[in-house]
Amino acid sequence: MTDESTVRFQPWDEAGRVPPGTTLLEAARGLDIGIESLCGGEGLCGTCKVVVEEGVDCLTEPSKADELLFSDDQLAAGHRLSCRAAVDQPGCAVTATVPSASQQTGGVVLTEGVEREVELDPAVKHYRLELPTPSLEANVADRERLLDGLADAYDLEVTAVDWLVQQELPNRLRATATPDGLAVTATVYDGSEVIDVSPGLDEAVYGLAVDIGTTTVAAYLMDLRSGERLAVSSRLNPQSRFGGDIMTRVRHTRRQEGGREELQEAILEGVNGCIAEVTRDADVDPDDVYEAVCVGNTAMHHLFLGIEPSYVAGSPYVPGNHAALQVKARELGLEINPSGYVSWLPVSGGWVGPDKVSVLLVSGHYRGDELTVCIDIGTNGEISVGNRDGMWVTSAPAGPALEGAELTHGIRAQAGAIEAVEIDRETFAPSCETIGGEAPIGICGSGVIDLLAGLFETGVVDRRGQFRDAVRGHERLRTKDDGVLEYVLVTADDAGVDHDIVCTQNDIREIQMAKAAIQAGTLVLLEELDVETVERVVLAGGFGNYIDPESAMTIGLYPDVDEATVESLGNAAGSGAQLALLNRAHREEANAIVELVDYYEIAGTDVFRDHFMDAMYLPHREFERYPRVKARLEALRNVDDEPI
Amino acid sequence: MTDESTVRFQPWDEAGRVPPGTTLLEAARGLDIGIESLCGGEGLCGTCKVVVEEGVDCLTEPSKADELLFSDDQLAAGHRLSCRAAVDQPGCAVTATVPSASQQTGGVVLTEGVEREVELDPAVKHYRLELPTPSLEANVADRERLLDGLADAYDLEVTAVDWLVQQELPNRLRATATPDGLAVTATVYDGSEVIDVSPGLDEAVYGLAVDIGTTTVAAYLMDLRSGERLAVSSRLNPQSRFGGDIMTRVRHTRRQEGGREELQEAILEGVNGCIAEVTRDADVDPDDVYEAVCVGNTAMHHLFLGIEPSYVAGSPYVPGNHAALQVKARELGLEINPSGYVSWLPVSGGWVGPDKVSVLLVSGHYRGDELTVCIDIGTNGEISVGNRDGMWVTSAPAGPALEGAELTHGIRAQAGAIEAVEIDRETFAPSCETIGGEAPIGICGSGVIDLLAGLFETGVVDRRGQFRDAVRGHERLRTKDDGVLEYVLVTADDAGVDHDIVCTQNDIREIQMAKAAIQAGTLVLLEELDVETVERVVLAGGFGNYIDPESAMTIGLYPDVDEATVESLGNAAGSGAQLALLNRAHREEANAIVELVDYYEIAGTDVFRDHFMDAMYLPHREFERYPRVKARLEALRNVDDEPI
Repeated sequence: MTDESTVRFQPWDEAGRVPPGTTLLEAARGLDIGIESLCGGEGLCGTCKVVVEEGVDCLTEPSKADELLFSDDQLAAGHRLSCRAAVDQPGCAVTATVPSASQQTGGVVLTEGVEREVELDPAVKHYRLELPTPSLEANVADRERLLDGLADAYDLEVTAVDWLVQQELPNRLRATATPDGLAVTATVYDGSEVIDVSPGLDEAVYGLAVDIGTTTVAAYLMDLRSGERLAVSSRLNPQSRFGGDIMTRVRHTRRQEGGREELQEAILEGVNGCIAEVTRDADVDPDDVYEAVCVGNTAMHHLFLGIEPSYVAGSPYVPGNHAALQVKARELGLEINPSGYVSWLPVSGGWVGPDKVSVLLVSGHYRGDELTVCIDIGTNGEISVGNRDGMWVTSAPAGPALEGAELTHGIRAQAGAIEAVEIDRETFAPSCETIGGEAPIGICGSGVIDLLAGLFETGVVDRRGQFRDAVRGHERLRTKDDGVLEYVLVTADDAGVDHDIVCTQNDIREIQMAKAAIQAGTLVLLEELDVETVERVVLAGGFGNYIDPESAMTIGLYPDVDEATVESLGNAAGSGAQLALLNRAHREEANAIVELVDYYEIAGTDVFRDHFMDAMYLPHREFERYPRVKARLEALRNVDDEPI
Repeated sequence: MTDESTVRFQPWDEAGRVPPGTTLLEAARGLDIGIESLCGGEGLCGTCKVVVEEGVDCLTEPSKADELLFSDDQLAAGHRLSCRAAVDQPGCAVTATVPSASQQTGGVVLTEGVEREVELDPAVKHYRLELPTPSLEANVADRERLLDGLADAYDLEVTAVDWLVQQELPNRLRATATPDGLAVTATVYDGSEVIDVSPGLDEAVYGLAVDIGTTTVAAYLMDLRSGERLAVSSRLNPQSRFGGDIMTRVRHTRRQEGGREELQEAILEGVNGCIAEVTRDADVDPDDVYEAVCVGNTAMHHLFLGIEPSYVAGSPYVPGNHAALQVKARELGLEINPSGYVSWLPVSGGWVGPDKVSVLLVSGHYRGDELTVCIDIGTNGEISVGNRDGMWVTSAPAGPALEGAELTHGIRAQAGAIEAVEIDRETFAPSCETIGGEAPIGICGSGVIDLLAGLFETGVVDRRGQFRDAVRGHERLRTKDDGVLEYVLVTADDAGVDHDIVCTQNDIREIQMAKAAIQAGTLVLLEELDVETVERVVLAGGFGNYIDPESAMTIGLYPDVDEATVESLGNAAGSGAQLALLNRAHREEANAIVELVDYYEIAGTDVFRDHFMDAMYLPHREFERYPRVKARLEALRNVDDEPI
């Protein structure tokens, strides 16, 4: 006969035997089950809640803290602080469920694009406190009463209190005065500043990751206690009404009095729209959102924060700052808690902004051994090459062709857009896949790459990207009035529009120029590192999820590598912002990346121009640089006799 | 025959002999003459300017830095950087005048009230920089270009740039681009944050000391480079329209929706009015004013900053904060440079606010050996007692009688107010002095104290403050309808008003109650320190300048001490704010004072009530506590037979 009792924890269904007097928190620790306990088992913080399903009568009576934190109904249903509830009797069987909010999570998994586990350590945290009731004897001021409480209960050396919080502090502290003291929850930013004080126990603490693209804005609402993503909202960047591309918008700030303010207001309006939507969808009070971690290219960063963008837009492309900037939400007018913060990741250099830094946070290749190229394809292609021993980054002016724009029948990725193309070697007839399986209405980025690769593989175009005379007269090829050929991808009969969908010689030039810019940028960096090629290719951006790796390599968009090593990160910029929001260490990492990575400004340099001319060829003037592509092509047809 | 030359410096008329190649700065150092040189003689900062009156041809040609900093006219007139101008030829005689802005001042003397020397070390300083011109090679971002410059030239580890400054930084840096680089002046706050960047050399840097009283507001505009006071402005506190006393205003915040905001706006309007006036008077751009150091009582502090004042206004009198608070000027709407700061000195406790801490900064008695009482007389009398071994502070509810209010013919200090009274021992006839020598219209604080002391000394009133029956029938004493006596100070014939100016029995009660509150507060603190009396008395407030020390001691306003040890500091609160503005070390000192001084809350305590009853007597129920007063009185008349 023993005095011990059995305590079992759900959802793990793990049990152990404990002597009388053992608290449930201690029992869990004995089983290596992690229950949150911010205050270290002092009955203060309320983070170690469990629900006792069986054997509640074997436990000590509910403590004062339990009575304060739980309603009568909850107490009756077995809700207890695990640090206060001790097994009181011998030979009992107790079963307790640990709700997910009380579970000490090793980390959460982000599934946006690539999966990445992240330990939770957000900048914003809640601390529940019980403070002495003010009296003639205990007459220390409210601010110091609060800060002393944080030091005593949580060993936090907080020295700052936001001004707005200070104004209301006397009221907030006294809102839930009990005979035992003042019960409040303090919201602390980065362990150093109180940014909110709420009466009683307040568990709601949320944050936003915001990805500001030239074209679209996306906001992710995250629960900072669980790491869970609660809602997402995206919309067109309202700055688009001032111009679709960055240069037009920057010109607007120079030419129009108050233009910089107009652009700033537009993007803030867009982000505030996203905030209204995600908080409504998740039923969250915007005042419980305490931080927005933002990423975007350098121009978006400058325009969002109201920083003069003119000088980064022209040579020598010097940005206003490298450092990670932080501004109070109320100063910007971002509609979250006014005492909260808007935090931008740092700027690498020139056009290589916080979005690229965010991508590097996710790809992590700056700290790996493998020599890697990481390409974020957009109007500007941001390219990084290197490994832990050294890394260069640059921005290449790809233009919008790979996004489907500025081609005769190019369109953005949307229902009816041709996203994949294969061309028959004999008939040159294409087979097209469209988004949503609808009748084709145009061709988008991934289709464009497939198309050019297919035309080259089948010999419709030569290594210079010109329609070969040999294909003249073929039914898919049509001679225009000026004698130049064009390739008919879909006839009007099969299209969802009332005309043929074609690819002209000029379209092919546009695609070549786009890929050549990225390829040349990559080659400049490879040369700077004094290496010939890389071991691994990482693609970022929504685009990367859809392009066919073989097609992309065939036209030379990235170096010749084993296809198995090509990885797509999806929207890595948004994922990186989430990482930085959920764990402060990733912000330090982002700062370290900016220190570590060398920015190479290629614009206007001779070395870029030279590489660009060579990169106009398919896949490159020096075919030997693409041995895998060359071997495959040679198996299909004779490529050596083509003019270069 | 020697190669040496003679260099003479004005205004000191000191000369020394130096070998060729010696710069004027070096020559001055050899003579122990202090010339400012922030950058250490690198030709960067422009602080070491001199005017060469004689022998300019013996010096090296003007340097690039000279050409940048001086106009052609100035160069022709002999203006030079002393660090760049070296004696070039043997056997010359050079005379240079060091203008006051270039003189390394040991300190400046504040003459507001008591004189106090202060070393200049303001929080706000200007640093002139020459930064590398941006290029493809030197493409570090603007923020880091600026911060690197501050680190290189001045060894400053600045990490923050105000957001508004960051927004304009790209424009500001490039505003005076020269072939040699970007010439700018950075304004740095407390060595840690850039709060302005101006093109070229900008020497204008000013600050404000602001003293916010319940009744009046005063602002002092100070040149932070010279320590000179440039202008003063004072006006009625516009909060007065919501009530003359603090309690009425605090009630307004509770009873009126938006009342707290109204009171905050009112005081900001008052201070902004002062700012407009001092900057206009001194011809200073408000944007060149970078800091306002504020003092005031706890209620003024709370209402200015918008902090809930209700709880400090009632028992247990807990303020919102002790710590020195700092808010960006733009957040408050104070009309100085929007990136500048409003800095309040800390709060001791209860009603003992930053104004009293400021007084202690000036009196310094918390760090002396002498046991001292320091009294700041106002509607609340703030009292501190102690020395370096320990000090207590409290606030006593004196009411407005000593300020002339609530007496039958009491008025504020103004032209025609009786400020001094003597009473003839035989005739009981008063001789009055008025402010400005005008016909009397009423009696103000210092007159009130003289009057009561005179009535007591001459035996018109007894130690209980009651008119003695023995004086009934005397021509100066009039029996009113209710049989109670009143003393006629001035008859209508001699007055500047159309009625007699009198002192009633009730007036005497009011005065007794006011002095008793201060006396009792002092006695509570003496008891707490376990001492009987003090060695020194310090009076603060404008009031202290005018009261007669003997009269004040006779009625018992402060302890019985050698009259020679009674010192009046004048408006010490305003002086303390100036000290803190001109030298950061005094802010640390203010924080140390709050740590060092124990706040005693006397309101509602039995010990205060008991002392108050005893203190209603003249000078005190226990006459032995006032041996000097007793000895003097006994020489005049028999006081032992008076009822107590």
